[in-house]
Amino acid sequence: MAYTLVLLRHGESEWNAKNLFTGWVDVDLTDKGRAEAVRGGELLVEAGVLPDVVHTSLQRRAITTAALSLDAADRHWIPVKRSWRLNERHYGALQGKDKKQTLEEFGEEQFMLWRRSFDIPPPPLADDDEFSQVGDARYADLGDELPRTECLKDVIARMLPYYDSEVVPDLKAGKTVLIAAHGNSLRGIVKHLDGISDDDIAGLNIPTGMPLVYRLDEDLKPLVPGGEYLDPEAAAAAAAAVANQGR
Amino acid sequence: MAYTLVLLRHGESEWNAKNLFTGWVDVDLTDKGRAEAVRGGELLVEAGVLPDVVHTSLQRRAITTAALSLDAADRHWIPVKRSWRLNERHYGALQGKDKKQTLEEFGEEQFMLWRRSFDIPPPPLADDDEFSQVGDARYADLGDELPRTECLKDVIARMLPYYDSEVVPDLKAGKTVLIAAHGNSLRGIVKHLDGISDDDIAGLNIPTGMPLVYRLDEDLKPLVPGGEYLDPEAAAAAAAAVANQGR
Repeated sequence: MAYTLVLLRHGESEWNAKNLFTGWVDVDLTDKGRAEAVRGGELLVEAGVLPDVVHTSLQRRAITTAALSLDAADRHWIPVKRSWRLNERHYGALQGKDKKQTLEEFGEEQFMLWRRSFDIPPPPLADDDEFSQVGDARYADLGDELPRTECLKDVIARMLPYYDSEVVPDLKAGKTVLIAAHGNSLRGIVKHLDGISDDDIAGLNIPTGMPLVYRLDEDLKPLVPGGEYLDPEAAAAAAAAVANQGR
Repeated sequence: MAYTLVLLRHGESEWNAKNLFTGWVDVDLTDKGRAEAVRGGELLVEAGVLPDVVHTSLQRRAITTAALSLDAADRHWIPVKRSWRLNERHYGALQGKDKKQTLEEFGEEQFMLWRRSFDIPPPPLADDDEFSQVGDARYADLGDELPRTECLKDVIARMLPYYDSEVVPDLKAGKTVLIAAHGNSLRGIVKHLDGISDDDIAGLNIPTGMPLVYRLDEDLKPLVPGGEYLDPEAAAAAAAAVANQGR
């Protein structure tokens, strides 16, 4: 018996469109992003991959993507679980900054270190910054765990406990699981599933709004490494576009 | 200490607009219904009534109303629980029928019996009817509990166990609870809270998209009988319109 896990990065957000570092800033989807989410749900129907349960981050762009996709797939009624552990990487002091300006100001090397290094976080965001999450009711329970910046390694460290304790039991129960989340929390899951090295994960880009389906064996290892996009040509083109952000 | 429960009937649905009996048919909101849902969320913010957890039926019009209201209130990230026990009354063989035609065909007395009597359900819906829920994946677990028709008494009988086992613990934990549901499942809750008699509940109409806030004492009895609409004038006008459906 194979288990089925579907990863879905949120559709285009307002700050994707403006080319700003977003992180934990809770921006909305654009109309294009909403259309991507609906198309994602239609692809699920066409492929006959119907989620039994959905896990989302606590961020609007993932929550709305899940709602629109599931509505389009007539699966709006399935159980929902949410966790900050599926949130996007906290981008620290870069949150709210223009990617192109940041590239020009700090240079290619520093820019790519912040964007794609495994364990070098950007400088921390000040608690009184307009884009800080200090005081946000949804994170009130986190206490000292509330990040001020994160590298991918940090994201994986807070994401994996949720994957193991909440997602794995749903998979083992035979449920088709949808995770609607973000570029970096999903890269962490892909890294974990496919056993990608700390160095090689830098080259992996996940496009917005494209369901990525993993069929997993009894040990929850991928039957097809890298999984399968339901619309592979569109996914390849979109991933290339993500890789070129800031250029 | 007072507990806070917010009841929200879904915004106008496609079949509200067409004046059809809907019941368990899973129709969508109209654009007006979406706007009502957003306005409901704005009213919550203006009143400072911010839900900590939301309960919905398994029906699209309530699920989408909850999503839009909570997004407008910046509470899209709160935990979600869903149950068929919060569904609208199953309208039996009337599902899909025009309310005005039904009134003309069967006469005022029979029409009002089906609509407002406490314990007389419409004739059952045939399992092979196009509007039957037999075979709908979301109700697969119900088995023999899947209704083919319901009166208000039936709705209350299947709703109250959910209220007692799932809603009451959230209230007692001090959470502000939002229930996004339907005309009849919410009438059942109001009847329970306010101790309305089987006869008098017939005269109670709940308007769409208007948050109805109950402050409850330690025994979960209303501090203000009937609760308080956040926009009382609009609610009174809308309730009168509901009462006149089919006329």
